[in-house]
Formats: sequence, C-alpha cells, structure tokens
Amino acid sequence: MLFERLESKGLAHYSYIIGRGNEGFVIDPRRDCSIYIDLGIRHGFRITHIFETHRNEDYIIGSVELVRLTGAHIWHADSQMKYGYGEPIDDGQIWKIGGLKVQAMPSPGHTPGSVSYLLHDPNGSPWILFTGDALFAGDVDRVDLLGMERAPEMTHLLYDTLFNKMLPLGDGVIVCPAHGAGSVCSSSIAGRPWTTLGFEREHNPKLHFVDEDEFMTHVAQKNERPPYFRRMEKINLQGAPSFESLPPPQPLSPREFFQNASDGVVVDTRMELGYGAAHIPGSLSMWLEGLPSFAGWFLPYDTPLFLVNETVDPMKAVRYLFRIGYDEVVGYLAGGMLPWHMKGYESEETPMVTVQDLCKELDREKDLWLLDVRSREEAEEAGEIPGAHQIHVTQIPQHLTDIPQNQTVYVFCGSGLRSMLAASYLQREGWRKGVVVLGGLSGWNSKSCPLK
Amino acid sequence: MLFERLESKGLAHYSYIIGRGNEGFVIDPRRDCSIYIDLGIRHGFRITHIFETHRNEDYIIGSVELVRLTGAHIWHADSQMKYGYGEPIDDGQIWKIGGLKVQAMPSPGHTPGSVSYLLHDPNGSPWILFTGDALFAGDVDRVDLLGMERAPEMTHLLYDTLFNKMLPLGDGVIVCPAHGAGSVCSSSIAGRPWTTLGFEREHNPKLHFVDEDEFMTHVAQKNERPPYFRRMEKINLQGAPSFESLPPPQPLSPREFFQNASDGVVVDTRMELGYGAAHIPGSLSMWLEGLPSFAGWFLPYDTPLFLVNETVDPMKAVRYLFRIGYDEVVGYLAGGMLPWHMKGYESEETPMVTVQDLCKELDREKDLWLLDVRSREEAEEAGEIPGAHQIHVTQIPQHLTDIPQNQTVYVFCGSGLRSMLAASYLQREGWRKGVVVLGGLSGWNSKSCPLK
Amino acid sequence: MLFERLESKGLAHYSYIIGRGNEGFVIDPRRDCSIYIDLGIRHGFRITHIFETHRNEDYIIGSVELVRLTGAHIWHADSQMKYGYGEPIDDGQIWKIGGLKVQAMPSPGHTPGSVSYLLHDPNGSPWILFTGDALFAGDVDRVDLLGMERAPEMTHLLYDTLFNKMLPLGDGVIVCPAHGAGSVCSSSIAGRPWTTLGFEREHNPKLHFVDEDEFMTHVAQKNERPPYFRRMEKINLQGAPSFESLPPPQPLSPREFFQNASDGVVVDTRMELGYGAAHIPGSLSMWLEGLPSFAGWFLPYDTPLFLVNETVDPMKAVRYLFRIGYDEVVGYLAGGMLPWHMKGYESEETPMVTVQDLCKELDREKDLWLLDVRSREEAEEAGEIPGAHQIHVTQIPQHLTDIPQNQTVYVFCGSGLRSMLAASYLQREGWRKGVVVLGGLSGWNSKSCPLK
Amino acid sequence: MLFERLESKGLAHYSYIIGRGNEGFVIDPRRDCSIYIDLGIRHGFRITHIFETHRNEDYIIGSVELVRLTGAHIWHADSQMKYGYGEPIDDGQIWKIGGLKVQAMPSPGHTPGSVSYLLHDPNGSPWILFTGDALFAGDVDRVDLLGMERAPEMTHLLYDTLFNKMLPLGDGVIVCPAHGAGSVCSSSIAGRPWTTLGFEREHNPKLHFVDEDEFMTHVAQKNERPPYFRRMEKINLQGAPSFESLPPPQPLSPREFFQNASDGVVVDTRMELGYGAAHIPGSLSMWLEGLPSFAGWFLPYDTPLFLVNETVDPMKAVRYLFRIGYDEVVGYLAGGMLPWHMKGYESEETPMVTVQDLCKELDREKDLWLLDVRSREEAEEAGEIPGAHQIHVTQIPQHLTDIPQNQTVYVFCGSGLRSMLAASYLQREGWRKGVVVLGGLSGWNSKSCPLK
Repeated sequence: MLFERLESKGLAHYSYIIGRGNEGFVIDPRRDCSIYIDLGIRHGFRITHIFETHRNEDYIIGSVELVRLTGAHIWHADSQMKYGYGEPIDDGQIWKIGGLKVQAMPSPGHTPGSVSYLLHDPNGSPWILFTGDALFAGDVDRVDLLGMERAPEMTHLLYDTLFNKMLPLGDGVIVCPAHGAGSVCSSSIAGRPWTTLGFEREHNPKLHFVDEDEFMTHVAQKNERPPYFRRMEKINLQGAPSFESLPPPQPLSPREFFQNASDGVVVDTRMELGYGAAHIPGSLSMWLEGLPSFAGWFLPYDTPLFLVNETVDPMKAVRYLFRIGYDEVVGYLAGGMLPWHMKGYESEETPMVTVQDLCKELDREKDLWLLDVRSREEAEEAGEIPGAHQIHVTQIPQHLTDIPQNQTVYVFCGSGLRSMLAASYLQREGWRKGVVVLGGLSGWNSKSCPLK
Repeated sequence: MLFERLESKGLAHYSYIIGRGNEGFVIDPRRDCSIYIDLGIRHGFRITHIFETHRNEDYIIGSVELVRLTGAHIWHADSQMKYGYGEPIDDGQIWKIGGLKVQAMPSPGHTPGSVSYLLHDPNGSPWILFTGDALFAGDVDRVDLLGMERAPEMTHLLYDTLFNKMLPLGDGVIVCPAHGAGSVCSSSIAGRPWTTLGFEREHNPKLHFVDEDEFMTHVAQKNERPPYFRRMEKINLQGAPSFESLPPPQPLSPREFFQNASDGVVVDTRMELGYGAAHIPGSLSMWLEGLPSFAGWFLPYDTPLFLVNETVDPMKAVRYLFRIGYDEVVGYLAGGMLPWHMKGYESEETPMVTVQDLCKELDREKDLWLLDVRSREEAEEAGEIPGAHQIHVTQIPQHLTDIPQNQTVYVFCGSGLRSMLAASYLQREGWRKGVVVLGGLSGWNSKSCPLK
Repeated sequence: MLFERLESKGLAHYSYIIGRGNEGFVIDPRRDCSIYIDLGIRHGFRITHIFETHRNEDYIIGSVELVRLTGAHIWHADSQMKYGYGEPIDDGQIWKIGGLKVQAMPSPGHTPGSVSYLLHDPNGSPWILFTGDALFAGDVDRVDLLGMERAPEMTHLLYDTLFNKMLPLGDGVIVCPAHGAGSVCSSSIAGRPWTTLGFEREHNPKLHFVDEDEFMTHVAQKNERPPYFRRMEKINLQGAPSFESLPPPQPLSPREFFQNASDGVVVDTRMELGYGAAHIPGSLSMWLEGLPSFAGWFLPYDTPLFLVNETVDPMKAVRYLFRIGYDEVVGYLAGGMLPWHMKGYESEETPMVTVQDLCKELDREKDLWLLDVRSREEAEEAGEIPGAHQIHVTQIPQHLTDIPQNQTVYVFCGSGLRSMLAASYLQREGWRKGVVVLGGLSGWNSKSCPLK
Repeated sequence: MLFERLESKGLAHYSYIIGRGNEGFVIDPRRDCSIYIDLGIRHGFRITHIFETHRNEDYIIGSVELVRLTGAHIWHADSQMKYGYGEPIDDGQIWKIGGLKVQAMPSPGHTPGSVSYLLHDPNGSPWILFTGDALFAGDVDRVDLLGMERAPEMTHLLYDTLFNKMLPLGDGVIVCPAHGAGSVCSSSIAGRPWTTLGFEREHNPKLHFVDEDEFMTHVAQKNERPPYFRRMEKINLQGAPSFESLPPPQPLSPREFFQNASDGVVVDTRMELGYGAAHIPGSLSMWLEGLPSFAGWFLPYDTPLFLVNETVDPMKAVRYLFRIGYDEVVGYLAGGMLPWHMKGYESEETPMVTVQDLCKELDREKDLWLLDVRSREEAEEAGEIPGAHQIHVTQIPQHLTDIPQNQTVYVFCGSGLRSMLAASYLQREGWRKGVVVLGGLSGWNSKSCPLK
C-alpha cells in the first residue's frame, strides 16, 4: 500500500495519493501532476479516481490533466457549481478502490458544497479523514467567502460539520487537510505536519468553542480575499492546460531582455540583498519562495512575465507561477545580473539599513517615517516599533496615497523580504526615498530596541 | 519543521528524522546513513541527537557512523547492556532540540531496557510516540527473546507499558513504531502505514486483552528466532563500519566468476522463472526483494558472497545485504547469465510446473510428495493442499532428513518465490527431483483446486 | 560552450546539441526531445536552429516538437521532398549561431538530398563535420534506398561527396555521424565512439577504394530494407506528436491483462531465460534492449501493444517503442509474471538447451534440424554449425514454409536472444517443437564444438 | 565500449574513463572519485588501471582512493619523483585492457617525467592521445616549473615531444589533454572542447614555431606560480584521504556562526551584488564558480573555513574546495544572510558603482584612483582605462603598500567578480574606501567609454 502526501511548497498545499493493489486515487491533485503518474507506475497501480474536496481558489487543480493521462474519473464536491468536468458527489457515497473503502462526508462551511473523504484502513475501520479546508491543524477555515451576510449561515454549517460529524468519528482518526502552515487560506495553521481528531479536539483553539454562539463570534470573521482568487476559481471550474504542454521560458541576453521585457512585467526572484544592491529599473522584487504567496497580489494575468534569477535554472520559479495560473513566463535574463552590467545596461539600487543604523538614526531624529508592511496579527504578536505606519504589503497598491513621496520611508517587515517587495513596488510607482530595514522586526527585537 | 519517516524496504524498518530550526534528531538510524545528513543539509539543520529505542537484532543500526559524520550524541536504551558507545537514558529524561521537547518513556517488555520517546508538538503538547518495537500497528512485540522462562515477567512489563503508560497519553497521539508490515519482528503487523493510540486501542487485537491474564495467554508466545539475530545484536552493541568505506563488489567476467565464486556462496537474485530456467550450479535462489528477510537464514557470515543479478546494477542487493551485516559481497557476474552461456559454462535448471499441470498430475497419481514451505500461520489462513508436508522455508536446513531424495518433490509456497529458494537449497544439497509450483497456493486457490 | 552528443541506445542514433552564448542548435533531434531543452536551460542558451542531415527512416525525428517548445527554425536537407515543416537548405548556406559558423555541405549519395554540416571552431576554422549517414566510423552508408537501378548514380554521388568534398577538408577534422555501432543503418559501423577524417581515410575500408570503379563494386550493394522504414519516412516528412502528450501505459492486473490483451499484441521484454521458463501464450519475446532493432520487423502499427516486463517500470520500453513510432502501448502486466501465475492464468514454456547438451544430442543423432537466425555476415565471420539452415531472424515471417512443424527445431543465434525471439514467433504461429540454444554460436565456439 | 570525459568545473580539469568488456582504466582521476566506480558498475566493467600523466600541482588527484575502492593498479609518470604509491612507467610500455592497447609515450617538457598515453582503437590503430599538460587545445604547457634556469632544457624536451613524437602520429589522432579553457595551467587554452593533432598542427599558435629557436623564444616564459601548488604537489606524491570519509560542514545558526567563525576564515560564495549589499565583517568575497581558481591564492591551509552561501546546499562549494585540498570546511551559515540580520548581527557593505556613474564621476573629477585587478594579458587584449593602476588580483596581498587607504579606490576587473574579491580583501585588511565597478571593463566597453 502506498500512502503519500505531496506538498507544494509556498502554497503549503497538500495533495494525497493512495494506492493498493492495481488501483489508486488522488485527493486534490496539483496542477503539475506527472508526479502522481510516476508514483503509480513505480508502485504498480493506476489512478482510477480523483477526488476534489472543494472548488479551490488559491491554486489551480490538476484534475483534468490527470484524467487525460490516466483515464481516471473525477468526483468533485460542489454540486451547486457548474463544473466543466467530472461528477458531483452524493452524501455518503462510497467507493471501493484497490479494496479500500472511501466514503464521502459532506462538510459544508467553507463553501456550501465542501466534502471530506473518510478513508478506511484495509480492515475496514475509519482511519484517515481528508478534511480539505474544513479543518486544519490548529485552525478551521474561513466562512466569509460568500460574503459576510451569509457568514452566520456558513458558520452554522461549519459548526455542525466539525462537532456533529467529524469529532464523533473518534480521537484516533488521522486528519489530512488540504493545507499546512504557510497557506494563504489561514495564517493560524499550526506547524505540526501530522495531526489527529483527538489532538485537534484538545489543542485546536477553534474547537474549544463548543458553545455555538461562542464559535460564531470567533469564526465568523472577515478576511482578506486576494484578487486572484476569482480567477483561480474560474479556471478550476473548467480545468487547466498541462505543464508539459507549455513552452519553457527563453533564456535572453541582456539586449534581448532589454528589448522585450518592456512589454511585460519583470519579476526579480533574488534575495533582498542582491535586489537592493542592483536591479533592473522597474522590476518587482519577489524572492523565489515568496512567489506562491505574493505573485497573485502583484502580478497581472494576461501579461508576459520576465524573470531575473540568482540561479541558472528558472524552472522552480516557473513552476511556482504555473501553479497559480501564470502561464505566460516568456523569458528570463540568462546568467542573471552579471551580464546585464557587463553589457552596460542601467541598474538601480534600493537603499538598505541595518537595525543598528536605524536605531542610531532614530536617536538623532525622532520623526522618521516608518512603514510596517506586516499583517495586523503579526504586529500584535511580535510587537511594533512606536510610531510606525502600518499597511499590509498586499494592501500597498490600494494605499499609495497614504505614503509620502518627498520624505525617506523606512520599510520593514519581519525579515527584510516583504519590505523589499513593498519598496520595489513603490520604486516602480515613482517613489525615490524608500529604505529597507534589514532583519526587520526580528532584528529589531534581537537588538532589544524599544517596542510599543 | 521537517518530519520524515524513512523505510528500509524488505526489513520494513522505519527510522525517523525530525528537524526544526538548526537542530534535529534521528530515531533508530539505518546503517547506510548518509541520507540523514543530506536531509539535514537540505533543510538547514544539523543532527545533534540520535535515539535508539532498543538494541536491535534484525538490522544493523547506523548510530556510530552517523556520529562520525555529525558529531551528534547517541542516547541508547538498554542501560543493562554494555554498549560500545553513547550513553544510557534516565527514566523521564527530557531533551530540548530545535525548541522541541522529547521525553524518554521506558517501555520494557520486548527487552527490559526498551525506551519509547514522546515528542511534543511545537506548542508543547504530547504529539507523537516513537514506540520502537513495543507497539506496532496491529500488534505488540514478542516477549520471548530472553527465553520463555522470563516471558511472564516480560509480558507483565509490556502490559504495564501499554496499558498504564502509553494508552493514558490519549487517543489522539500518533504512534510511530520501528517496523511496518513485512518485518521479521512480527508477522501480524497491519498494513496501515500510519496509526494512532486511539486507532490501536480500538483495532489492535492485542490491546483488546485488557485483562492481564488474558493478555498473558495471548502474548507470552514462543516465536522463531533467526540465527543471525545474535550477530546483529553483537555488532549493534559495538557499532558498525560505514557503507561508503566498503569497496563495491567487482563486476566479473564468466571466467573470473567461475574461478573465484567457488570460494564463497553464489546468490542468484533473479526472479523465480529465470533462475528455474538456468542458473549456475550450486547457486542459491533469493529474489532481490527477498534478501532482507531470508539472507540471514541461509547465508553464512565471514564468507565471500557472489551475486547473479537480472539487472546491471548490483548495488540494491549489496545495500540490502549490508544492512544486515553482510559486508563481504566481493563480486557479481557482469551482464548476468547471458555471457555465462555465451562463454559455454554449464548451467542447471530447476523444473517448474503450473498449478493447472500439477492438478492434472494429481488426478493421475494420488501420492505426489508435496512440500509446503509456508509458515504455519499462512497455511492456516490461506488453506492447505491435502496431504502436503509442511516445513517452513527457514527450517528446511534443519529438516533435510524429512524430505525424500528419490522421489519428485513438488515445492510450493504462496507465490513461487520461497519455493524456488527452498528448491535451490535442496538442489545445492544434492536433491535432484525438486519441482517448483508456479503461483503457489495463490494460483491453487485461483483455480479452485481442492483445499484441506 | 556546450558540445554534447546524445545517444539513443539500441537505435545507436546520435544527435548533437551545441550551444554558445545565448544560442544553440541541434542536429537530428530525437523524438523525446525535452532533454535538449533541459540542457539549454542549464547552460543558459536557447535553441534557435534545428538541422536535419537527411530524411530519416530508422527513427522518428523530434524537430517539430522541439520547435513547439523553443520556437527554433528547422532546416531540412532534402529539397526534393515535400516536408510538412521547415525550410530546405541552399548549397553552402551559412548560419551564425552564438558566434559559431555552421556551413551546409550537400553530401548526396545515401539520398539525393543528404546534407552535412561543417561547424567551425570559435576562431573560425573548420572543426567538426556532422556527416549524417554519409560517413560513419568504419563504413559509408547504403546507396540502394531508391532501388538498385539508381544505385550506380547514387554511388557516384557518394564517391564525389567523400573524396572530393569531405576528405579535402583535412585529416584533423572531427567526424560526427548520425549513428554508432549497432545501428540498423549499417552492420559494419566500427565500435570507436569518436573519429576524424584522418582516421577514416586511413582505416575505413570503404575509403580505401580510391578508384571509383572499385568503390562502385564494393558500395553499390543491395541491403535489407525493414518494412517499417516507409512508415518512419512518412511520419518524418510530417512531424510527430510529443512524448509528453501521450498517456503512459496502464498497469493492468492479470485479469485486466487477460481480458484486454487479446485485442492487441503482447510483447515480453524479459530476458530469454525468464521468457523460456514461462510466458503468456501468444506473446512475442523481445528482450528490452532488442526493441529498437527488432520491434519494427515484428510489431504491427495501429494495433494496441501490451507489455510484460521484468522490472516494475515499463517506461524504458515505452520510450524505445515511441522512438520508432509505436504510440499505442496501452498497458502492461503490473508486477510481471508472478501475479499472473498467482491468479492461476495459463502460461507456456519454450524449451531451452545448453550447447553442451546440444552437442551430446548431436552425437546421438546426426540429423537434428538446426535453424540459424543470424545474418549472413555474422555467420561468415563467426562460423557456422554444419548442416544448419540459415534464415535471418527478420526473414522468418517470410519463410515459414521452409521450417518443419513436425520435427524438433533447434534455434540458435549469437547468444540466445534473437533465437528466443524467433522461437516465440514460431510458437505464436503454431509451431510446438522449437528449442532455443542458450549461448548460441558464442557458446558453441567457447566449447570448441565443430564448425563448418 | 565506454569512453567518457569528466570535467571538474572551475579547475577545467579533464579526467577520462575508458572501459571495454569487463575492464577499464582512468586517466588522472579527480579526488572525489566515486563517479568512476558508478560508471564502471553501470557499464559492467571494473577499473584495473589508473594512469597519471604527470605529478599534478593544480588539483588533488584521486588515484590512491580509487585504488582503495577498486584494487586497480596505479601507473605514475614521473620516475624521478618519489611517489608514495604505484609504479613508474617504462618508455613505450604497453598495456592490454579490455582488449584495448594503451602505450606509454614519455613526453617531457612540462616536467621531466611527463608521460602521454596513446590509446589504440579496438582494431589496433593509433586513435587517441592523452597528452596531460604537454599539449592543450590552442596551447602547450609551461616549462618554467623547475625554475627559469632549466627552462631552455625543458623547452628543448617539449619541442622534441611535440614535433618529433606527437605530430608524426598523424593528423587524424584525437587529442585528449588534462585541461580545457579556464585552467590556471594556461590562460591561452582554446574554447573548443574536442581537438585533433591535425587541428592543432594547423591552428595552435605554438605549433607554428617549427623552428626550435623561435619556439624557444615564445615558449620559455616565466609564469605565475600560485603558492598552493607546492602543497598540491606534496599531497599528490603521497595520496589524499577520501571525500566520503570527511564529515560534511555543519549548518550553524547566526549565534553559533558568530561564536565559531572567528577561529577561521569566512568565505562568502554569493555573487558580487549580494556580498556588496551586506556581508559579515571580515569575510572574503569569492563567488562560487571562482573558488577553484582563487581559493588557493587567498585561503590558508590548516585553518578552519566557514561559508556563507546564497543557496541552502553548501556541498558544491565544499567539493570545489576539497578538490584543491581544503578539507577543513567546518561550518556554514544556515539560511544565509537573512537570519544573520534577523538575529541582529552586524554587517558591512562594499560600495558599488555602475560604469555609467563612474563615467560621470570621472567627468567631474579627473584624478580618481582606479585599481585594475585583471591580468596583464587581459588588459592588453580588452583594453585599459586611462590612468588605472594595474595589480593582478592574485598579487594584491603582496602589493598592499601600493594602494592608498585614505582615498576612494575604484576597483575593476572584467565583470565585477574579481574586483569584489579584491575589494573584500582590502576591506578585511583595513581599507575603508574601496568601490567596486559593476560590469567592469566589459561594461566600460559596452558604454563606449574611453580606453587607453
């Protein structure tokens, strides 16, 4: 028997493949899905079923492509939605795959049509619950996707799902959600890669609200909804083209890059220091591992993308972007910034400052303009620098008018990465006086600088 | 945080590596241990602690080599035993590694000094229990290793460990044992790769005996003890040399193989059909994936081994043998049997028969001598052919006198693999009339042939 | 600068990729062409040109797919032929790619439109000649593809190409042909992987015939033309679909295999011994590494193929078949023959005999019917068994009436592989008395048995 | 037959492995030599002979370790030197390996005992000449290693080797030297990866001097001799410990790095921009691909080394250092500079300037102090900035007094990499006013700035 969880880094998306005998199934396959085929071949089973827990908005699902390669059957969750493929699920529907029993358990709340799947062990006992976004390690999913006016209704459904359907399955059941810590779907997912109903019952703060009213108060909250979610959702209702069918991006010489990149957006995936030292004017700083979380907020669809990388091989970045629907990465600067300078093309810098130097500056001058681009929750948890202006990095485009242009703006986040992204965005929009604080609030705390 | 289980196929041995921040630890490392280093480097932590759950007898542990490569500290379990390395553990001892809390929980029963380790999640709650051989999915470990006279005492200790220490931790705790299904340590390990205390409490047949007397009756059983266990144990108390330090086996031409292999034992790792069709006289049939389970029963230590393989690369076989202490694989037949025949060297065959043909033969002649080399348990579960003589494959060397030489002996197991091993052993010992039943009892059942 | 030769094993086809700066080109790309993309990405260049040396008949060329992935431009050779893509070449045409000069040198003979490409080193001196099929290490190509009536004309063209165009370039020029030893395009290609014009001038037997009449006598020969060549040629004039777009074959259980495989042809890729011991009735024996050379002679196109393999992973076999246009490999027996027997399905054997036993048999009985399936050239070179009937393995289907059905037929080749293929074909056609000689003539010679 | 060249990047060292049948040999194995074993196993031969072309000074040879793993026999070149292993070679000595003939051809000049090896093709004709350092593509080797007083004698020997021994073998012989372009052994090696005696005879400038006096004039030159050459040579006469036996470096947290690195030297392998933006005070900038060429000039032996990397995996850097004898890479900063700043540790910057800005600065102020760290040859070939002071990067440590401390020093090379190395060295030695010119002279030329 094969049981494997595959994580798409950055998205913190979990898919699962389970095979036994000559048959197997996949839960919520990722878009670049040849890995499932390979696992099946290596373990001697073919994928006969694909299960979706809900219509996804934070990544593109690979169901349709996986069907093309395997002939499997797709079962999707949301019977109210018009999918372009597959078949909706009946309440309690049962499948036998490789002798294993899988049972559908509708678990509305996140969406009305969310479904969990209960896998029984080879002897037939309830064993693993694939909860999709209904239940995470340390959190439950948001209920505001249909709008706050429907949130109470959805919260009620979620409460019922969790307390009346899931928990009664027993503490010993293993919980396999669709996301781990780091997902945009919840900032409170705990950093334990495996969990159980029993562990969650005891330690998941949301499951402590056994009183439904209290649950309602704490869960029916409004959250950010990234602009690209609608697009994801739309693509996911139709099915997306395959990774292998896309031409890989072209390595471009500095001249070619210079000539072509003005038609699109230049994304610089290097770390903050290299970008700060010198970058192509107008490029956006988005460190490689930050692409899955931030690309959707800043990069337009339907516009060619051009990459600047630290490493030779751009394919990791391309894969990250592809997974959230950016199929038009047309080129990258071959060899990185070194040939750019060797060919005499212009570059810009973004000034950086260490926390030590910022502290000294603050001693000299009280009224520095500090821009804190962390989220509200982070700021509350890790502390704030007195007097800083807080705008979450993803909200910068909507709050440009709140940021002065004629004054030095010290941008900080938790580390220096998101602040460089914010600073690069401002620079692109015409700001000339952004300075990034290296180490961010972590560095600040390490030096015992004063906090609010 | 990295949490990864590594399985040594064939041995069905599980080791675990857990890392967080810059530190990590390994539970029961396997002998070819560079993989732990690689994982540490890739995830940015170094291995600072190595924990052994008990002194192992079924494989060689890699602790000492891993220390050489990392400088980690070894904690071993059995304070009564004289280890050549590391430090014994105190009851309840606590370590902090990468901010994670690990706590020792003595769990005697299998051996007096067995220890489990309770890992807490990043927030400090009891999360995962590394149970070593004390508790498996679907079984508990044997208590007869110190002899049946001490079995009641050990069973009492095991009962106490399971019911008074482990189960009270709560159903939601994840159980990570040292073995999965297929281990020689227990033939009853269930085929579910992940489990919990709650699942075991409900579904592990041994944990249903909450009455200690009943538990005693069912658990204090005598089991086979492979002859190589003593050697494993002895090596494990000292620490073993590294995989990388061993010269790989030499590819040998047919002439070289012919000249040298007579000094040692020839092991043919091909599948049963190729071996049956033609093999080097005197060679032993042991299909590749059967090496971890059967090599120890049939291959002498301190004797050079020579391999005949189907594939070009012998290293998988070498690794399997190395993990159970066979360090002297000196050569292999380059190119397999084809050049052997092309150079005109002699080969032998082992006759094979399909179940269909065996049935016809049985119709003609009632008194065929059938040798069933499956274990007692298998025979009871899957059925027996009427009139078959039963000798478990591992016991053949001790029961040669029970097997006739002047009569055709039809050897069968569950599939055809162990029967070919048995037949090859008999052939090596002078038997000339062994015939292997292809498909074994599975084939027999598939054809609805009569069973006892 | 990257210069790399890629060999397609079995076909002994060489393709070449050369990159410098940001640009590169490929000579005669193979069909599964993602490897060129990967090399380009890793070395920072993009493929801008694809050159074909001639229209190929022995494998499917990947030009069109490579264009889809790179946007490169195809230059093909045969201006008389109507290609479905690309552009024909002018005599002496020059390209500059990454600063390197490539020059077209028409080299008719094999086909009227064959072209060689002369690559100059970075300083501009004639350096490497890509000769396609015009000049190999140790041989020149056949001239009979347009029929023997045009052979004199083609031989004259080839003579002119070799002696008046190529050799004058100078002994120091490196020769990079389209095939190495083992190709079906010539059985005389020498086993030296690298060569030069100077080495060939001195040691290539065909280049010793400086007198054109003598050259004509030795080169204008009729050779076998495999039946699949026409199909290859036709596909190659259009361009072929991509490897990645094809669904991989399905792992099938014995039951599924049994039910479906009767619609197609079963190809057993195991070695001769396993096949001989037991195989699925009606299956054809074609050992894995023999697929590229023999599939085209025995396997129909437009018929589903089903594989039986020794190893778990069927993709090597699938790739081999794909490269010569077999796109319909729909399934394979998951787990190989073992589950087949375990499920009680019927199998057949093919008797085998060692040369020792054959010799004894010959001593007993003079009139054994021996079938030698080697080629004429091999037989002449390596010797023949007195009285053997010679039919080349590829000609068996056309000569069935020459082979007795009611008498034991001892089939031999050089090793045992092609003889098993021949025997399996006969068995499929109803012969019941084939016996394969293990080791073939090599074994025969090794035992100093008598030769003609 | 396997013929493969392996390149050690950076060192531009070529080793060769050739195998046929069951035997094979290696020419000048690199230190991390498990790759030869792997190739042998995959192709079914064992390495029976190891040949050294001369005692090497620019890298550590792996002969002794390779013997340990294979039992092969070492043949070394320099009969005058006392090697700690193997056996010296007789003039014209012949070996038969896998049926291939290899013949020793003494080729003194570089060292008195240098030997070339002439490999014959399978039919016995002279085919490939392994020339060691005697003959490269586009150059011949230096003759000054024994001092300039013996240079005329050595030049005479080299002339004799080239013109009287090698060239007479014939233009068609393939030349396989020990180095390609980029080696420290010669800055004039041409960028063509394959060559022949004929090509070299025509296009190698040194071979145009058929008159011995003229040859003497152009070849008997004094060259730089890196300080680490003596150490290499000494280790190579004894044999070096294996790669696998060395513990890999430890990932260190910022605190651990801070506490330990002061005992050694910190090497920052990031690209120039990241280093310039912020680096650990006192660290030396040496971009990853520059390690093989520059480490030996700047890094002490017998001192622990600590790495700062851009990527997570430090093993590429470790391997590069290991190949030139730096076995003491004890740790690296886990996660790179980001956690360093997050933990509030101090960093330094090195100012950088684009050529555009430097030009503007030069317009403003005539008397800028420009430091050109390129080699004499480069400067002559690519042009010089008027007024620049020229000190080759490797000579900076010996010429510190020539560089002003109280004035801005603009450092440039060809690209920005070596200038950052030079600037980091100066900074480490107390200079505070170094500025690195991004793009170096290449950028300068691209902008059509004035040259001398």
